[in-house]
Amino acid sequence: MKNIRIALVQDAERESKEAAFSALENSIAQAAQNGAKIICTQELFPTPYFCRTQDPDLFDLADEIPGPVTERFSEVAKKYNVVLILSLFEKRAPGLAHNTAAIIDADGTFLGKYRKMHIPQDPGFEEKFYFTPGDLGFKTFQTKYAKIGVIICWDQWYPESARLTALSGAEIIFCPTAIGRIAAEPAELGALQREAWLNVQCGHSVANGCYYAAVNRVGTEAGTTFWGTSFVCDFYGRRIAEGSQDKQEIVYADCDLKAMEDHRRMWPFFRDRRIDAYNGIMERFHD
Amino acid sequence: MKNIRIALVQDAERESKEAAFSALENSIAQAAQNGAKIICTQELFPTPYFCRTQDPDLFDLADEIPGPVTERFSEVAKKYNVVLILSLFEKRAPGLAHNTAAIIDADGTFLGKYRKMHIPQDPGFEEKFYFTPGDLGFKTFQTKYAKIGVIICWDQWYPESARLTALSGAEIIFCPTAIGRIAAEPAELGALQREAWLNVQCGHSVANGCYYAAVNRVGTEAGTTFWGTSFVCDFYGRRIAEGSQDKQEIVYADCDLKAMEDHRRMWPFFRDRRIDAYNGIMERFHD
Repeated sequence: MKNIRIALVQDAERESKEAAFSALENSIAQAAQNGAKIICTQELFPTPYFCRTQDPDLFDLADEIPGPVTERFSEVAKKYNVVLILSLFEKRAPGLAHNTAAIIDADGTFLGKYRKMHIPQDPGFEEKFYFTPGDLGFKTFQTKYAKIGVIICWDQWYPESARLTALSGAEIIFCPTAIGRIAAEPAELGALQREAWLNVQCGHSVANGCYYAAVNRVGTEAGTTFWGTSFVCDFYGRRIAEGSQDKQEIVYADCDLKAMEDHRRMWPFFRDRRIDAYNGIMERFHD
Repeated sequence: MKNIRIALVQDAERESKEAAFSALENSIAQAAQNGAKIICTQELFPTPYFCRTQDPDLFDLADEIPGPVTERFSEVAKKYNVVLILSLFEKRAPGLAHNTAAIIDADGTFLGKYRKMHIPQDPGFEEKFYFTPGDLGFKTFQTKYAKIGVIICWDQWYPESARLTALSGAEIIFCPTAIGRIAAEPAELGALQREAWLNVQCGHSVANGCYYAAVNRVGTEAGTTFWGTSFVCDFYGRRIAEGSQDKQEIVYADCDLKAMEDHRRMWPFFRDRRIDAYNGIMERFHD
């Protein structure tokens, strides 16, 4: 048995970046004390979800990666001997920014970054204005405790994201996200959307025979109510841990990597993939 | 509103092919009377699930497609003005057979066939012995009532199957299947496997913004208990119809194709696919 405890930090908007950093440091200390080895934040954890409007001044919120933020949390990772996944707004060049996750190993080493590949654009989620689509592809990172992959928010709807990450060997896929219901939409629609969000991601874990962890915000920011529900599902798509819809909390799950391998031997989906017949995936649509 | 009622014929092993054909004719008459416009059988409906052992004599069970079976059911389709999806064992040449679905339009026209692309092989499901992997690719068929796609059983675990079918325009994806628990496995494992089976397929409907219908057997055949649960889910992955785990029955659902388009405009997943970054899908694994 090879059990790895992971922790998802489900938090709400904080009054400042410094307050968010400080709150995360406290959460990491607590999670580490509770045995967590890999700790992941929600999407864009240092700030409010700022993509509600299209405002050039908000590019000021971006941070360089690596840079002061990752340096600060490298020290924290090392102190507690934990792997950290930080979801950040990345400044790359003037007018060129990404929605990026930074991965820091348990010894404080900066392992690399993943840049969100699929960028949404709809009222209240004006992301194509801010985020250049990722150019690093889908990736995995060999950490001290497990081989992990990270995808971000809108990526979660695309089976290709999870598949490509799993084909690179990810045992656990993390997905920081910021998803909720805008005030203009009825509550029943929000409930359906949340259900769809759960269904598609639990599907990824089954299709790829791996663990999958989604980390979402809670709280209402300028009319958008984030639905929390940060969860971990196993390779049956069964949610083995799930947070509330409205509370700041840390969600824990134990991932049994030996059980995962046993399962994959019985249902060896990767064995039978028809790689000779998937060319059409590279096309927009088959007219 | 464009509502199409579909019907899934969840049946058990019959004493002969003739009995199975006759039972299906009765089911089609009943479903048509209840307003169904597209009717789908479980996998390999004319026979027991014969892949429990590897026996060359069992190739005698195969039928030519098109051939006498499709000719017989073309008459039935025409009589009731319904689209039929028949899951059959296809004889192609000596020692060359496929697991195939035949699609017949409401005027009796044979529209074509889909050959199962992903073939399993594990104790009690010795399919690689019988079925040559499909060579027709993933397909859709424009029927009188809707544009439909068909995948078969083991295909159901592969997001690529549903994706490629949806990219060809499928509004409803049908999946005849024969899945259950072998006697050697504990009931708890069977329950988990059934849950995984539901989860991954409901995920397909979300990811592709379409309806999805799975049609399974019931009953116990030589120790294998098929778990029924034929279901239809909508584009939220919500099961809008679901059959029992153990009864022969017809499962009905109404598919609202206008609501499906409305939904896709709001969540336009196909708009943002990173077709520049999916090359790795064509590889077995990324070592």
